[in-house]
Amino acid sequence: MTHNIAILGASGYTGAELVRLMATHPGMNISALAANSKAGQSMAKVFPHLRHLELPELVTIDQIDFSDIDLCFSALPHATSQKVIAELPKDLKIVDLSADFRLRDPAAYAKWYGAPHAAQECQAEAVYGLTEFYRDQIRDARLVAGTGCNAATGQYALRPLIAGGLIDLDDIIIDLKTGVSGAGRSLKENLLHAELSEGAHAYGVGGTHRHLAEFDQEFSAVAGRPVRVQFTPHLLPANRGILATVYVKGEAQKIHAALSHAYKSEPFLQVLPFGETPSTRHIRGSNFCHIGVSGDRIPGRSIIIAALDNLTKGSSGQALQNANIMLGEDETAGLMLAPVFP
Amino acid sequence: MTHNIAILGASGYTGAELVRLMATHPGMNISALAANSKAGQSMAKVFPHLRHLELPELVTIDQIDFSDIDLCFSALPHATSQKVIAELPKDLKIVDLSADFRLRDPAAYAKWYGAPHAAQECQAEAVYGLTEFYRDQIRDARLVAGTGCNAATGQYALRPLIAGGLIDLDDIIIDLKTGVSGAGRSLKENLLHAELSEGAHAYGVGGTHRHLAEFDQEFSAVAGRPVRVQFTPHLLPANRGILATVYVKGEAQKIHAALSHAYKSEPFLQVLPFGETPSTRHIRGSNFCHIGVSGDRIPGRSIIIAALDNLTKGSSGQALQNANIMLGEDETAGLMLAPVFP
Amino acid sequence: MTHNIAILGASGYTGAELVRLMATHPGMNISALAANSKAGQSMAKVFPHLRHLELPELVTIDQIDFSDIDLCFSALPHATSQKVIAELPKDLKIVDLSADFRLRDPAAYAKWYGAPHAAQECQAEAVYGLTEFYRDQIRDARLVAGTGCNAATGQYALRPLIAGGLIDLDDIIIDLKTGVSGAGRSLKENLLHAELSEGAHAYGVGGTHRHLAEFDQEFSAVAGRPVRVQFTPHLLPANRGILATVYVKGEAQKIHAALSHAYKSEPFLQVLPFGETPSTRHIRGSNFCHIGVSGDRIPGRSIIIAALDNLTKGSSGQALQNANIMLGEDETAGLMLAPVFP
Amino acid sequence: MTHNIAILGASGYTGAELVRLMATHPGMNISALAANSKAGQSMAKVFPHLRHLELPELVTIDQIDFSDIDLCFSALPHATSQKVIAELPKDLKIVDLSADFRLRDPAAYAKWYGAPHAAQECQAEAVYGLTEFYRDQIRDARLVAGTGCNAATGQYALRPLIAGGLIDLDDIIIDLKTGVSGAGRSLKENLLHAELSEGAHAYGVGGTHRHLAEFDQEFSAVAGRPVRVQFTPHLLPANRGILATVYVKGEAQKIHAALSHAYKSEPFLQVLPFGETPSTRHIRGSNFCHIGVSGDRIPGRSIIIAALDNLTKGSSGQALQNANIMLGEDETAGLMLAPVFP
Repeated sequence: MTHNIAILGASGYTGAELVRLMATHPGMNISALAANSKAGQSMAKVFPHLRHLELPELVTIDQIDFSDIDLCFSALPHATSQKVIAELPKDLKIVDLSADFRLRDPAAYAKWYGAPHAAQECQAEAVYGLTEFYRDQIRDARLVAGTGCNAATGQYALRPLIAGGLIDLDDIIIDLKTGVSGAGRSLKENLLHAELSEGAHAYGVGGTHRHLAEFDQEFSAVAGRPVRVQFTPHLLPANRGILATVYVKGEAQKIHAALSHAYKSEPFLQVLPFGETPSTRHIRGSNFCHIGVSGDRIPGRSIIIAALDNLTKGSSGQALQNANIMLGEDETAGLMLAPVFP
Repeated sequence: MTHNIAILGASGYTGAELVRLMATHPGMNISALAANSKAGQSMAKVFPHLRHLELPELVTIDQIDFSDIDLCFSALPHATSQKVIAELPKDLKIVDLSADFRLRDPAAYAKWYGAPHAAQECQAEAVYGLTEFYRDQIRDARLVAGTGCNAATGQYALRPLIAGGLIDLDDIIIDLKTGVSGAGRSLKENLLHAELSEGAHAYGVGGTHRHLAEFDQEFSAVAGRPVRVQFTPHLLPANRGILATVYVKGEAQKIHAALSHAYKSEPFLQVLPFGETPSTRHIRGSNFCHIGVSGDRIPGRSIIIAALDNLTKGSSGQALQNANIMLGEDETAGLMLAPVFP
Repeated sequence: MTHNIAILGASGYTGAELVRLMATHPGMNISALAANSKAGQSMAKVFPHLRHLELPELVTIDQIDFSDIDLCFSALPHATSQKVIAELPKDLKIVDLSADFRLRDPAAYAKWYGAPHAAQECQAEAVYGLTEFYRDQIRDARLVAGTGCNAATGQYALRPLIAGGLIDLDDIIIDLKTGVSGAGRSLKENLLHAELSEGAHAYGVGGTHRHLAEFDQEFSAVAGRPVRVQFTPHLLPANRGILATVYVKGEAQKIHAALSHAYKSEPFLQVLPFGETPSTRHIRGSNFCHIGVSGDRIPGRSIIIAALDNLTKGSSGQALQNANIMLGEDETAGLMLAPVFP
Repeated sequence: MTHNIAILGASGYTGAELVRLMATHPGMNISALAANSKAGQSMAKVFPHLRHLELPELVTIDQIDFSDIDLCFSALPHATSQKVIAELPKDLKIVDLSADFRLRDPAAYAKWYGAPHAAQECQAEAVYGLTEFYRDQIRDARLVAGTGCNAATGQYALRPLIAGGLIDLDDIIIDLKTGVSGAGRSLKENLLHAELSEGAHAYGVGGTHRHLAEFDQEFSAVAGRPVRVQFTPHLLPANRGILATVYVKGEAQKIHAALSHAYKSEPFLQVLPFGETPSTRHIRGSNFCHIGVSGDRIPGRSIIIAALDNLTKGSSGQALQNANIMLGEDETAGLMLAPVFP
């Protein structure tokens, strides 16, 4: 059986990535592609790399007949997404890729995003989309909130350690490096090739990046007490890939054992042999996450490094994995593409 | 039914690309991976991006029992490949990715490669592997010779024009730009990141590049008279992708029509609307070739631009496409992966 | 003696490059920096790489007292530049880096730029700024028009050959590859890192790029008859550098001799030994232009390859070289910086 | 007065960088260039970007007459450098860029480098070349040991804070990102463009990188007690530039004030306004180091980020700065080149 799929916000990178992944998915049919600003154009015009596919023309959201749609991905910008989703049919399955439904606490949302939430009813029913830790709720969910790409990376490195009481909860540092596609297809001076290539810099330093809200919510829930981490993202001269270097106080061998155990049946989370380090080059274009653990010369200190592709496992791949679960498909359908190297 | 496949030379980029493509191929099982210099290692060690696959350990060629193998890819360096293939069972289907069996004339081989061919018997039976133009011979071939990646790109732009008598055969210029993975995983100073990034240069200038031998052989055969083109390759600071800008004397609209007609049923060759230009970014990681045609302000001059991924359509994807035909599989099996952008 | 210099359009790349070059110039003092859209900001804010310099704050053009200024660089966008320059004091020495004063024929300007020229009086007195060929006129000029960066590269490869009657004037092809900074600091989707990196494409194909107007004007003047070349620019995933591969019909050794002779006393134009090819990596950040000449296997065909940095020799370095001449400074002052490699 | 300079190891990146910097130095004459493996070649052949300079041909070290040399730079590989320097005239001023003379304690050297030092007498007289903190000793030194490029970056961020007692000495983490030229011009698979571009990974994880020996030596000396930091270097897909993100426990405003005070008269060390973050793009090709300080949402935590060019301020620029001091030149001579951006 083939499911009919709609994508809202199809002219951005995560929208295009959803189409790329579904191109070889055996059970999904892309029925509608919406992008208000580019309605009337062909997808081949907006994303020439998808030229070989037979795809519907871009339309406005209003033009979509949702009665035929089995599941809708919303790849709209945050703040916009919540308004649009509030107006969609109440029985439509939705996977949202924006930040709008990640935070369960409306007050936390208002604090981090600077305005009250416009669709609190939907917010209340949304399930946090970190597949490996919310699989059962996702199965029965109507609305799944895709996680932040940085937030996913950090959580894969840390959740089993927090749950297992293996690390000092008051001394966690996530130094993260991310490719530029995470910032989307937006016209900003600092995203120009001439500005960004051949170098690196930190941004959102000092506890201001919004993905911290997710870390706070999730790590505190896992620990059963408030947890506040340090988190510094850096922009890399690469299109895809997140590398999170996580510094903790805890025993490295125990940490490695805990991660290996937690993920031993997970198709996409791969814990490397002890002491090996992952590279973003080795997960590019795929839904895999590689995780390495090392000790330090200072006893009791450990380093966990996690690598994933922000557009795939960090966003559109995760969304498709969740959609597979919601629709009763094989969870890995369309997602076993091997990374592209070199 | 699943075919058992062996890959010789699995520690190079084209070997790894074959594995990547077969990872989601429904009808192929990788039974043996040989790499003499790295025998005994796991593929995950040599190519960590393939870590998620269950693959046989690397062995020496001698260790392979070919009686179980349905088809063997040889991704060995040229000169080595011919010696190895000469010793393989005579009924084994083989797709060679090296330069060793591309030239039908032993004298031409000796001239361009500086030594007599060591397996002239095999050379005589080899079919030139430019799928779209040798499909019928490939179906019945035992040994198929993969084309040069640059040679494939230039031929896709030019063969129908030469066959149709649409261009001046004495004034053809191919200015080609290629990514660095075409040079393989070899330790050369000029392939270092610090030497290669952030710039461009020409190499093999003036009619010395060996892929000219293929152009000479093929274009002369199509034309029924000797054809000699000018060909200048340039190295780009990118890993994958070839862009061939071809300058000819002929009518652009007729050229566009001829290419559109010739490739209208080809699954991988896509002729863009007249006047549009392709980009290597839009075919990366895929088996597609995009071809654009433009006129010039000077009447009677035309420009054809072809883009493909040197590791995929230019090498391993072509090889798999040919193997599909040789084994009676759907020609596109495992090859419909969408390009990875950005 | 120190000359007081003003730069209009200081918030763009060519403006910043002028400041970089003058930072170690012994005889120039930057007295005023104008950038209307960023007036009131410090240069350190707009271009943090210039943070170490004591520079005047950015102002609007109106705020500059030109009575103290010895020479003014205009790095404004074309169309704007002509209007501003028309209003500047008539005795002020000016080097314009825009396209506004390159074409001597008002009809040609109107044809290529789509509107009549707004300052035809200034246009009439402007000297074309290709230093090595207009040195004497530049010395006495009030207004010098900086050349197009692509136009400069092609002319360095071709002028002596056309002047010497060494090549077929009806069969000249310039296949040019350029870095992205030539497009300026403008917010366009195709200049984003995620869109531009890791690939290449042609643009302005078929005789539409405006630098053709300069080729037409200059080559025809040198030849004493109309000359029309083919010219295809390609965008490279690199910030700086132009590589022009020029295909001509003529004897390679004679061409090499003619270029070597023409440039033997030029401080910045370096003809490589016969058969060697230049790389943009080896002129990056400098005012040097490297030129290589090769023959082809087809007798009577030659390839000339020229490399320069579009922001330096192609624009701001050329402008400073011309300013040095206009002010009676040593022509090379501030310009002998060695290229930055790797 | 002009000083005669010799460079040993001129065929590597730091050797070439020394030549680049001295190209516009008013008081230095390059008298001899040695590179045993490439002796007999011209520098233009080995480094075409230096083609415009009149330079002596490469020779073997034995061929140099040191009686005419005022100062010798040794850019030889470590272990080699100590043997060569031990044989040089005992009154020759030397700046060594290798790791051989950085550690004052022979036991520490033997531990980190795996063999006893072969020139302990020289080691005893060597002065550690971190200019801003050893300026007086450097003035009178015969032999100055250039620091590690990573070690310099980390020390600029931390020394004044350790000296001032402003941070917890037992909880210092240096997460460092470095461009590839720091690894030199060596033929290693992981330095190939196809392996390194478009991604990032950590190496030397867990306290194994040799620059830790410098941190241990220097920080312990400053603190007057043993100090052990955590240090994780990452390789970036960029040629030049180091970004060190340093996590400490201490008050951010006090830290910013201490760094600003310590470096207020330093020509090359620039402390940014509080809360701003540096980028490697803004120091590329220059001798400047940009340092930013931010607080964190967790009280008492601070982040210091330092950026410099590994080949310039991290190696050859530092070496030239030290040579200027040793020879009585202006310390900044030849080093005020502005960074190259974009």
